[in-house]
Amino acid sequence: MSVLYVSLGACSLAAHSLVYELDLPIRVEPVPLRTPESPINRINPLRRVPALQLDDGTLITENSAILPYLADLRPEAGLFAPVGNVERALIQSWIGYLASEVHVGGFRPFNRPERYSADESAHPGIRAKASEQLHQALAHVEHHLNDRQWLVGERYTIADAYLGVFAGWLPRLGEAFADLPNLARAREAFQARPATQQALAAESLR
Amino acid sequence: MSVLYVSLGACSLAAHSLVYELDLPIRVEPVPLRTPESPINRINPLRRVPALQLDDGTLITENSAILPYLADLRPEAGLFAPVGNVERALIQSWIGYLASEVHVGGFRPFNRPERYSADESAHPGIRAKASEQLHQALAHVEHHLNDRQWLVGERYTIADAYLGVFAGWLPRLGEAFADLPNLARAREAFQARPATQQALAAESLR
Ligand SMILES: N[C@@H](CCC(=O)N[C@@H](CS)C(=O)NCC(=O)O)C(=O)O
Ligand SMILES: N[C@@H](CCC(=O)N[C@@H](CS)C(=O)NCC(=O)O)C(=O)O
Repeated sequence: MSVLYVSLGACSLAAHSLVYELDLPIRVEPVPLRTPESPINRINPLRRVPALQLDDGTLITENSAILPYLADLRPEAGLFAPVGNVERALIQSWIGYLASEVHVGGFRPFNRPERYSADESAHPGIRAKASEQLHQALAHVEHHLNDRQWLVGERYTIADAYLGVFAGWLPRLGEAFADLPNLARAREAFQARPATQQALAAESLR
Repeated sequence: MSVLYVSLGACSLAAHSLVYELDLPIRVEPVPLRTPESPINRINPLRRVPALQLDDGTLITENSAILPYLADLRPEAGLFAPVGNVERALIQSWIGYLASEVHVGGFRPFNRPERYSADESAHPGIRAKASEQLHQALAHVEHHLNDRQWLVGERYTIADAYLGVFAGWLPRLGEAFADLPNLARAREAFQARPATQQALAAESLR
């Protein structure tokens, strides 16, 4: 049986929710991050989640690969789109944007300034600039959702699940990110789904 | 006719090379970056390349979406893999890794420390740490290529084209990145391809 490695509060929540959205026969294994004894350190040399280990041992990492892979196992659920349909490229584009520009370009320097300079006195300046960059990256998504309920087409897709995770991180960032009503709506839509509820419940059991 | 916006020396070279690899009826438009009068500013609100504008005006951005989209137009070329084949997920994973961890996580703070702190005196520390992070991100790819010629399977794929672009940026970074022989090999393989040569020639004409 395939195993999906996830962590409480991490970006792996999108993939985790898909296990229940799509009723997939995948075992979900919550692991701690950034601790020497975590099982993820043996499984994934990058020591990150999400990581999907298939029956035969093949390891798939990166949200931008795992979310499409899982959705393609159940095309009839309509959370992605078939090859040849331009919606497929647009969904993959939003996922790529969130992974590169929002997550690694925005949240990472904001949450982990120590990965951007060894000099501690530089960290407040790095966080201030990261807050600005993150705001700018999110404003692009906020604007896109002005006249749309979902990122692509007329239905919830894997791009909305992934956006829901990052939108869910905003309340802890305080006032500076309170002016994004469309992202608040995306968060609520994601968190209200029974599959997301089930994933959150499974993660917090550990 | 679809138009692919590219820029000399930019990460758009991978997509550009695919136009010739796959003999696609796409017009390629080289544009300058980071100048107020560039046409890319009207086309893409993010002001970035690559950006692919389809006949009907739909805009596709992000390498992690454009490269798979182009490859899926000519599945018979074998530069990607069909849905249901695990190689497809692995190719998408390497592209996602390069886009998020290598490009935005490594090259961007190294080349553009001003996007990570407004305080100029912090920039040398940011570049030093970015050099370390980039080295670590690339070491993962270097290690993977120890016993393989290509990132996935037994053939050149869109993941190798994308890697070839970043490997091509290493010589300008000097000595610190000279100890990555497998990446040097990936760069040479990419640059030796007639399609890459054709893309480079077309970009430098402007
Ligand atoms: N580019 C990766 C990033 C994954 C990532 O950064 N995951 C975080 C959790 S949100 C993690 O595992 N962090 C542990 C670490 O970086 O040490 C992806 O999109 O999947
Ligand atoms: N996440 C994007 C990044 C694209 C990107 O950063 N492109 C660079 C050229 S290598 C660019 O257009 N830079 C202009 C700018 O950032 O202002 C992708 O993977 O396509």
